[in-house]
Amino acid sequence: MLPRGRPRALGAAALLLVLILMGFFLFGGDLECERREQGDLGSFPCSLTPRVPPDGDLPADHGGRNRSDCVPLRPLPPKCELLHVAMVCAGHNTSRDVVTLVKSMLFFRKNPLHLHLVTDAVARNILETLFHTWMVPAVRVSFYDAEELKPQVSWIPNKHYSGLYGLMKLVLPGALPPALTRVIVLDTDVTFASDIAELWALFAYFSDEQVIGLVENQSDWYLGNLWRNHRPWPALGRGFNTGVILLRLDRLRQAGWEQMWKLTATEELLTLPATSLADQDIFNAVIKRHPGLVLPLPCIWNVQLSDHTLAERCYSEAADLKVIHWNSPKKLYVKNKHVEFFRNLHLTFLEYNGNLLRRELFGCPSPPPPEAEQLQRALAHLSEEDTCLEFRQQQLTVHRVHITFLPHEPPPPRPHDVTLVAQLSMDRLQMLEALCRHWPGPMSLALYLTDAEAQQFLHFVAASAVLSARQDVAYHVVYREGSLYPINQLRNVAMAQALTPYVFLSDIDLLPSYSLYDYLRASIEQLQLDSGRKAALVVPAFETLHYHFSFPNSKAELLALLDAGSLYTFRSHEWPRGYAPTDYARWREAQAPYHVQWAADYEPHVVVPRDCPRYDPRFVGFGWNRVAHIVELDAQVLTLRMAVRVRMGLLFPAKGAQLRGGGEAHSHLHRARLPPSNRSPGIWRTQSLENVPGPPSILLLRRDFCPWGKSLLLSPLDK
Amino acid sequence: MLPRGRPRALGAAALLLVLILMGFFLFGGDLECERREQGDLGSFPCSLTPRVPPDGDLPADHGGRNRSDCVPLRPLPPKCELLHVAMVCAGHNTSRDVVTLVKSMLFFRKNPLHLHLVTDAVARNILETLFHTWMVPAVRVSFYDAEELKPQVSWIPNKHYSGLYGLMKLVLPGALPPALTRVIVLDTDVTFASDIAELWALFAYFSDEQVIGLVENQSDWYLGNLWRNHRPWPALGRGFNTGVILLRLDRLRQAGWEQMWKLTATEELLTLPATSLADQDIFNAVIKRHPGLVLPLPCIWNVQLSDHTLAERCYSEAADLKVIHWNSPKKLYVKNKHVEFFRNLHLTFLEYNGNLLRRELFGCPSPPPPEAEQLQRALAHLSEEDTCLEFRQQQLTVHRVHITFLPHEPPPPRPHDVTLVAQLSMDRLQMLEALCRHWPGPMSLALYLTDAEAQQFLHFVAASAVLSARQDVAYHVVYREGSLYPINQLRNVAMAQALTPYVFLSDIDLLPSYSLYDYLRASIEQLQLDSGRKAALVVPAFETLHYHFSFPNSKAELLALLDAGSLYTFRSHEWPRGYAPTDYARWREAQAPYHVQWAADYEPHVVVPRDCPRYDPRFVGFGWNRVAHIVELDAQVLTLRMAVRVRMGLLFPAKGAQLRGGGEAHSHLHRARLPPSNRSPGIWRTQSLENVPGPPSILLLRRDFCPWGKSLLLSPLDK
Repeated sequence: MLPRGRPRALGAAALLLVLILMGFFLFGGDLECERREQGDLGSFPCSLTPRVPPDGDLPADHGGRNRSDCVPLRPLPPKCELLHVAMVCAGHNTSRDVVTLVKSMLFFRKNPLHLHLVTDAVARNILETLFHTWMVPAVRVSFYDAEELKPQVSWIPNKHYSGLYGLMKLVLPGALPPALTRVIVLDTDVTFASDIAELWALFAYFSDEQVIGLVENQSDWYLGNLWRNHRPWPALGRGFNTGVILLRLDRLRQAGWEQMWKLTATEELLTLPATSLADQDIFNAVIKRHPGLVLPLPCIWNVQLSDHTLAERCYSEAADLKVIHWNSPKKLYVKNKHVEFFRNLHLTFLEYNGNLLRRELFGCPSPPPPEAEQLQRALAHLSEEDTCLEFRQQQLTVHRVHITFLPHEPPPPRPHDVTLVAQLSMDRLQMLEALCRHWPGPMSLALYLTDAEAQQFLHFVAASAVLSARQDVAYHVVYREGSLYPINQLRNVAMAQALTPYVFLSDIDLLPSYSLYDYLRASIEQLQLDSGRKAALVVPAFETLHYHFSFPNSKAELLALLDAGSLYTFRSHEWPRGYAPTDYARWREAQAPYHVQWAADYEPHVVVPRDCPRYDPRFVGFGWNRVAHIVELDAQVLTLRMAVRVRMGLLFPAKGAQLRGGGEAHSHLHRARLPPSNRSPGIWRTQSLENVPGPPSILLLRRDFCPWGKSLLLSPLDK
Repeated sequence: MLPRGRPRALGAAALLLVLILMGFFLFGGDLECERREQGDLGSFPCSLTPRVPPDGDLPADHGGRNRSDCVPLRPLPPKCELLHVAMVCAGHNTSRDVVTLVKSMLFFRKNPLHLHLVTDAVARNILETLFHTWMVPAVRVSFYDAEELKPQVSWIPNKHYSGLYGLMKLVLPGALPPALTRVIVLDTDVTFASDIAELWALFAYFSDEQVIGLVENQSDWYLGNLWRNHRPWPALGRGFNTGVILLRLDRLRQAGWEQMWKLTATEELLTLPATSLADQDIFNAVIKRHPGLVLPLPCIWNVQLSDHTLAERCYSEAADLKVIHWNSPKKLYVKNKHVEFFRNLHLTFLEYNGNLLRRELFGCPSPPPPEAEQLQRALAHLSEEDTCLEFRQQQLTVHRVHITFLPHEPPPPRPHDVTLVAQLSMDRLQMLEALCRHWPGPMSLALYLTDAEAQQFLHFVAASAVLSARQDVAYHVVYREGSLYPINQLRNVAMAQALTPYVFLSDIDLLPSYSLYDYLRASIEQLQLDSGRKAALVVPAFETLHYHFSFPNSKAELLALLDAGSLYTFRSHEWPRGYAPTDYARWREAQAPYHVQWAADYEPHVVVPRDCPRYDPRFVGFGWNRVAHIVELDAQVLTLRMAVRVRMGLLFPAKGAQLRGGGEAHSHLHRARLPPSNRSPGIWRTQSLENVPGPPSILLLRRDFCPWGKSLLLSPLDK
């Protein structure tokens, strides 16, 4: 064995010496770095702070060496220190960007984080749901209302695409809690390629006077020579980019930051018409007047991929990159020599399975959110021997939910409006266009997807003129986890996000008749369902086995197809009990809506008020999920609670439970018991409707899209 | 602005001092480290080399501090230095493991890599194809034949599950090129959580005497007290783990390593029956005799998740982890306090889109493989205005291919054997069980999947008794890239991997009649197709529109179903031209095989010799892909090259190109021209067969699984 321990004391002394020396340099404002060349262990000093030479060139090298030959002697961030990050986020698209940014940050982070999000109502709704269901340990999220902050910046004329929200970074010192002394402020279009703690550690280099850490601009914008009569706001040389900011909030407040920037902005606006780059113009104007406020940061912490960026002078190898800033309006499509590299990094996090980031931040006290802890306990109680283990695990799974994944206009408030509610996975995307053509009204759709599939879904919508044109379809992504399709959880997500007073609880494989939307609204009004009369409208459904099929335009056409054997009543071959109470014979002749009597196993498609009982989320995989819901609706009418419970005990095990998405197939007995109906005290009565003028209200099931059809059908053929 | 540049000279001097001091320590065998505690910038020395105290305990702390309070003052690896990594890999499952390990390595690496792979024939076949199609810049791969090395270790009795292959790490100094002086040797069950250059940099700490860098064992195995009569091989204290090894090959060769370990092994085997842990026992026995050979490495470079591991004493926070070693036979299911964390890290790379690792290693000269460069040029030549741009891009795409993704037994050589060839994506997985029941012979199937889907596929097979039982089905994963289904590229991959003299070119939606496999083999023999007579056997196909359907067991049953309208001849409604030449009327009455005359648009399912012309890979998306192939087969019979070219010009644009997988849907005009038939000079004649005793040779298309059916069908319904 080798002698050990001997050189320790000496090592301690030597390092102490370095640290003292470093401290000396640092307060001088420079970051010291080591040289990084093969076979040469000597050292040389090089500044990582951007200098702004008179000719306006970025400092490419020092003494003939490229900057990237240096690696900063990194200060080590204190273990387990809570890091604070602030972002301004408004709207649907920016909310998606924030998630990707946060994923990249979480992937590399080793510290607990506190996110401070200044949001509009839309982003708050989305991100609150997302973080609540994500349950990442050691991540706290606080929201701040952008609406309240608007008056502080709305007086500033601004031409930047970020609008007022861009300017809000200026008011953070006042908006964030007074006890908060330091914060990293990020634009939503940055991607981390390293641990944010390394960035946080740069706070240690602030001198007593410095309050703002910024990376120099990597474009010629502020040099003012981009085009004739280009008059940028004043800045120190190239100016600084505000995509990544280190703020000493305590000192900013002390220094009267609010007055300082307001005064600067007011004075500059006397000669300049408006800000072009929002907050960045004002930050730069302030810094021009008070250059001592800024600590220039190494450029690798904000590699700016703007058009005609000079960022390449900042890094020369992949190891140099810490934070990528997609600050061109072209985003991922910006022209850049290394854009493929940057794009792959970004795609990594776009597609990254966010569930994997739920990992515990061990080594630091990081209690999971209370819900996560409850969940852990519940999961721990499950027996490995339980034949229903997989079902119980799936029932307990909390899925990450990103509501309104795409821009969405809520429908104007109308008393009889109906939202179509359905759920789907990737293999049913093809239904969306047809559905949009058949249902011109609002829809709320839950999509069960992986993170990567969610990106494919975005491309799918972008490529479809029909889908892109619709702003009244809300898509809610429920992220996949586990092997069983959580059908009722998906339905509940879609139902909870419906914004009209009524919902049509449909399925993705059903195509409404073209006029059903108008017809339902007229019927709701005519039948005075909004007068407190609680009823469910049953919409009769039909199916075809044919691939080439002309959709009927009238009840007469429909009946002719039925008689010709081209159409059948819904599931009449496989499951007549499921639709028998609809009484299709009566429906054929009916001239007016008629009452339908519930019977066991009835599972019609119904229109109900939005606040009707939710689906029982414990139904996962295939079978009885809708039957149970209808039982509950009916039970609340008749208050036959005892009888219902007896019936519930009889729910048969369903063979061949089958996922729709992604091709997982599992055969399981699915036993489920209904809980006592204690969720909604309303009174419900099922009712069918017919004979309001116009075409019949029909649904057609495309049998080739029948959910779980694949497993149901294979067995008879192969037994 | 602040003064800059001033403290540089001073900084240089200080750092130089440290480096000199460090050098002194290092040759003493210790790695120096800094303390990492909040608010305390002092330093203290701590050894990162594992000490083996007399009581056998792992060194948990130093002077009351936990090891993880320290972070080594990392030596910086030389920029762009080529790093060498060796692995031993045998069999299908280990090949998959290697890919995941390599993905984790590539994700964090910043240096060019040269992989040295000692492989059996199976692994070589898989990995050669994989790396060739992966085309990762700055990665070289060399293969070494394990078969040739076997005699050097086969004399050693060994009980470890890795078998002889485990022992092969011992012979690397002789097997690797003499010019290679240093190499990192890895087990295939490790996952990187950091840049391998940091590990490589530890070579700098080898003393003149040291030749092997190893991490101490993190289990009690070598202490010999695990159970009564447990007699492990000799080791220094806890011994060392050989999952991660740094080898100074030059010095090992010089020191007579081969003699050294062979002598040790021979002598130990006089008293010990066999190695329990393969090479690890022998490495440890050698080190016990020559302790000066080993440089103990920091334990974070081989965090061993064996059963009852003591690894927890090695790290206390996530930041400490560099390499995870899944060295329990339970692998991901091992019990461990932090296993969720480790598993998520591993799943990250299992699911990681390997295409993203094709990113250029910029900053280091890393010319892409020549094929990749050609591809880049071809892609650069495409015009953005070209309406067929998407098609041309897809045609040029080189898909990463992982052949025989699952264990596979090649069929024994039989002169008339037939392999069923087909391709599928995730949404057709459900067909596999039925196909296995209908076709008892060998199959070669290409699966178009993402990396994440490939993992789902593994679970799908593991969950199916039917699929798990079959060793004669070869699954080849073609990784998804681009938006159009590369149908003919997939067919070619599956066809190229068929190992029987004949292939049945089928489609995943078709179910063969139960006896078709036997019947085809009998027919090939009877018709003497192996006597140089070139012919394609046309297998007539039928379809049903019914979900509940009893598969016919005889020609009589089939005819009855046809007459009853429960069955149709294949695509008779949509595309009668595609199958008309089969002449079903004649087939009804036929008592013997008859000749079929090719006609335009004919696209039957045929049995042909394995070396028949490949499919034209430029057909992507939907349409004409099979028609073109049949044209080519037929053209080679009639040598009507001119006529064929004329016909080719007439290939109609197909509307509604549609992907099957993952739900992407695109509508495009697909124009394609056939190339001159210059790939295979054989003579081909299409021919149908019938009337060999036994049931009819039929195929049934399950229409609900019709590829592209979704798009074909939606339009008529919605126009």
